[in-house]
Amino acid sequence: MPRNILFIMCDQLRWDYLACAGHPTLRTPNIDALAARGVRFSRAYVQSTICGSSRMSFYTGRYVDSHGAAWNNFPLKVGELTLGDYLRPLGRRTVLVGKTHMAADVEGMARLGIDPNSVIGTRVTECGFDPYERDDGLHGSGPAGRYDPRPVPYNDYLKAHGYSGDEGWDDWANAGEDEQGNLLSGWFLKHARRPARVAEEHSETPYMTRRAMQFIDEAGDEPWCLHLSYIKPHWPCIAPAPYHDMYDDDDVPAPVRDVSEKSAPHPLFDAFMQSRVSQAFSRDEVRQAVIPAYMGLITQIDDQIGVLMKHLEQKGLRDDTLIVFTSDHGDYLGDHWMGEKDLFHEPSVRVPLIVVDPTPAADATRGTVCDALVEAIDLVPTFVDACGGEAQPHRLEGRSLLPWLHGTPPTAWRSHAISEYDYSATPYAARFGIPSLDARLFMVADHRWKYVHAPGFRPMLFDMANDPDELHDLGADPAHADQCNALQTVLTRWALRNAQRTTISDARIASMRGASLKKGILIGYWDESEVPDEVLHAKWRGARGY
Amino acid sequence: MPRNILFIMCDQLRWDYLACAGHPTLRTPNIDALAARGVRFSRAYVQSTICGSSRMSFYTGRYVDSHGAAWNNFPLKVGELTLGDYLRPLGRRTVLVGKTHMAADVEGMARLGIDPNSVIGTRVTECGFDPYERDDGLHGSGPAGRYDPRPVPYNDYLKAHGYSGDEGWDDWANAGEDEQGNLLSGWFLKHARRPARVAEEHSETPYMTRRAMQFIDEAGDEPWCLHLSYIKPHWPCIAPAPYHDMYDDDDVPAPVRDVSEKSAPHPLFDAFMQSRVSQAFSRDEVRQAVIPAYMGLITQIDDQIGVLMKHLEQKGLRDDTLIVFTSDHGDYLGDHWMGEKDLFHEPSVRVPLIVVDPTPAADATRGTVCDALVEAIDLVPTFVDACGGEAQPHRLEGRSLLPWLHGTPPTAWRSHAISEYDYSATPYAARFGIPSLDARLFMVADHRWKYVHAPGFRPMLFDMANDPDELHDLGADPAHADQCNALQTVLTRWALRNAQRTTISDARIASMRGASLKKGILIGYWDESEVPDEVLHAKWRGARGY
Repeated sequence: MPRNILFIMCDQLRWDYLACAGHPTLRTPNIDALAARGVRFSRAYVQSTICGSSRMSFYTGRYVDSHGAAWNNFPLKVGELTLGDYLRPLGRRTVLVGKTHMAADVEGMARLGIDPNSVIGTRVTECGFDPYERDDGLHGSGPAGRYDPRPVPYNDYLKAHGYSGDEGWDDWANAGEDEQGNLLSGWFLKHARRPARVAEEHSETPYMTRRAMQFIDEAGDEPWCLHLSYIKPHWPCIAPAPYHDMYDDDDVPAPVRDVSEKSAPHPLFDAFMQSRVSQAFSRDEVRQAVIPAYMGLITQIDDQIGVLMKHLEQKGLRDDTLIVFTSDHGDYLGDHWMGEKDLFHEPSVRVPLIVVDPTPAADATRGTVCDALVEAIDLVPTFVDACGGEAQPHRLEGRSLLPWLHGTPPTAWRSHAISEYDYSATPYAARFGIPSLDARLFMVADHRWKYVHAPGFRPMLFDMANDPDELHDLGADPAHADQCNALQTVLTRWALRNAQRTTISDARIASMRGASLKKGILIGYWDESEVPDEVLHAKWRGARGY
Repeated sequence: MPRNILFIMCDQLRWDYLACAGHPTLRTPNIDALAARGVRFSRAYVQSTICGSSRMSFYTGRYVDSHGAAWNNFPLKVGELTLGDYLRPLGRRTVLVGKTHMAADVEGMARLGIDPNSVIGTRVTECGFDPYERDDGLHGSGPAGRYDPRPVPYNDYLKAHGYSGDEGWDDWANAGEDEQGNLLSGWFLKHARRPARVAEEHSETPYMTRRAMQFIDEAGDEPWCLHLSYIKPHWPCIAPAPYHDMYDDDDVPAPVRDVSEKSAPHPLFDAFMQSRVSQAFSRDEVRQAVIPAYMGLITQIDDQIGVLMKHLEQKGLRDDTLIVFTSDHGDYLGDHWMGEKDLFHEPSVRVPLIVVDPTPAADATRGTVCDALVEAIDLVPTFVDACGGEAQPHRLEGRSLLPWLHGTPPTAWRSHAISEYDYSATPYAARFGIPSLDARLFMVADHRWKYVHAPGFRPMLFDMANDPDELHDLGADPAHADQCNALQTVLTRWALRNAQRTTISDARIASMRGASLKKGILIGYWDESEVPDEVLHAKWRGARGY
């Protein structure tokens, strides 16, 4: 059994921006080495295409529709169990270094009298983790104040290292400068090819890696689960030297898009295509500026994973540590005339997922690729399984991936992957007159089809076998109505799943069958002759002289 | 606006066992008087046909599929809001006298560090109420111990009034005696016509009524919501004199059933028909013994409601108090060859519901009957509305009934009622090989049809227009496949409702639209020329000299 779990997450890293996943020009030798030691899941889907809600599914093992934190900064309900709640009873100190995008249910905590500064309150606030260092990596500020009001130790770190002012993240790490040394903000896409204004060692990725190594050193012999959660390659997209010019125009893949996508598009796809960020990434100039920096940031992460792996080896932890490498969602990068994420084309909803199990049980599958449909919610059950815990299907909706790693594939694996997106906080809900609670999209994908249910609109449908680039939306085509209906039926079955009966296990329910009779609850008995003797005796004869 | 709310619930009282609902022989003049002062909702459905989960829906305003407490003693999740959470901020002390059938989420409370003996812990344990007197009214015991391990003040009361032993509920209030004074247990149906072994004034219904009046007296000027929750006419079915022989064989309505129901029945209906209690209530002997006692217990409740109404009047509270009278589910009483409840025929799933609004706004509808499809989950929103609170559709799934009382019916009321039943704790899940999490039934009823979705089985379907007694299950009839499909589509829409996004209101979400830009999150901006000046200024120029 692995002693430790190292759960590495990137932010906004597409599934195909790794050399081991087939990227033609990107260099990721250390991540590739993880894939060679473990299993790479080539069809891994996130439960939502936006940071906060995707992560809440990663951390709870539950669909967004189940935990309800459906968008960034929608608080996670105080009662939801998270990774730490599952792993602490299994003896793993569960710690965070980096980002969660968690919004605490402050109202719920107040209602239940939970002091946010207590140990329990901190965990409820910090997504179930003991925060070794929390940094969501988004420290913008404007006329309405700071986006993230928490303290930023990284800003203090930069200041201590000679970067002036209190906003080092914004002014140095995520900015460049012109020839006169003036700040050129990394928020502006046109600056993406400039070097960031920090020495590489002071940039976020190495900083967080060092914090992770500090934790590992301090933890000593205590078993742990460490969530090392990088903000990069998420925007602002600007890389420190030498990563800022490691890639060039020639290294940028052509966009996956077709003008036909703009003719009679699904109204919501159309709306998203019209957004500022989509308009921007539809321009070659933007892609050519941003993608090399995005790639540089990935190679920087790869190098830091190399540093971290060497550290694990030096500490003798290599064969004791289960390692996961993944991302919270992808990035369109101009594919399908889109920027950002939000919708369900593969560049957005599909993520890298590599799992390295150091135990001999996984030897036979090292270096293999598994194309089963796996989901972000499978990680918590995987970790519970790896630590010898019992499956808890009454609250964990994913399933352990270990059977895949151990060469014993489950006979009845899921046939469809589900993802969700809540657009109630975007301008489109109001624009289309969709009530806030209905402003949701649901993806159902199998090995061939991808279907999107959009209440208030027609569905979307892609045939990934004949149209692997997802350029032809068949959702309006009467010839595919049966296919849509079949996938809608799958969605219905999913929607009727039993997701909230979380306080009682199936085993405990089974033990309740017939139990009330033995506690004297006699339903439908005409007279005493019908009652088992031991019940009758205990109820009256013995105890009270009947 | 009413100062107080008196929320009266009976247990296992069928919708049609009231004179005002058309019962031909039962006398309920005081409840009829409530109907004359308010509106009687003739098509009121509970969210589940079993005490515990039905009540959790009454108290949370949410479907069973949403709160997850799907059967008796399945704990209600620690984070679920209950009636008290909604009404206390509106200035109403929210108090319980009687039954809730709540099972506390002890594990969840321990996880969150909530002391069960604190004020908050007590409310979490007691279904959100401040318990003035909690008594679930089921105090059986047997070889496996007590069904309800809590202290029973009513047993102490009986003892203090000369009823010997510690089990007065079981040995006196719910027992009769033979000519020699020996105990004849009220659990045995054959004893139902005997008088209970307590003086009427010491039986449960007057005891709880007095406790309610004591609370009202003590509360003084403080506004309150009092949940007076009678266990009766729930079994054990034995009434104190004179109620034990108030009704006779001639007063018992003929059973609603037909031998054809036993030919090719739905497998689950068949299984329930085979149960001990159904077999019992299929015998005339049992019905003739039990139903007169059941009716006597109802008339006793009616008399106590008379006492309570007189008390309210004497205290000057009659015109200050909104009154609800309802039940948590019905009782087959041998209809459809069934005993108990569990399935969705009208005797089981339909309940009495009378709402009296004392304010002048409701004058025009007094004494009227409303046949809109209303649900148990409508009560919390009704109370919130009555107390001047805002609607909270992001967590309350029901809707206020006040518009019906005020003669301003909502234009888009629900077209279907939903009810659920989880049979995982019954022997039938294992018998049919249905996985625990799938062992559920869903009812969808409109003004004509009643459809039951049963995963793993064919559906059930009743045409209540042409078959008002629900004797002909059309669920296997190919001629009605379209009707089944149409109702399944309604169920799908319901299943996809947004039920867990409970931590953030629609208004707050709307306020988030575009808000991150003003906190300096710039997504998709090529250069500064695209940024509104006040954002640009606050972000760099003003603050940091850009």
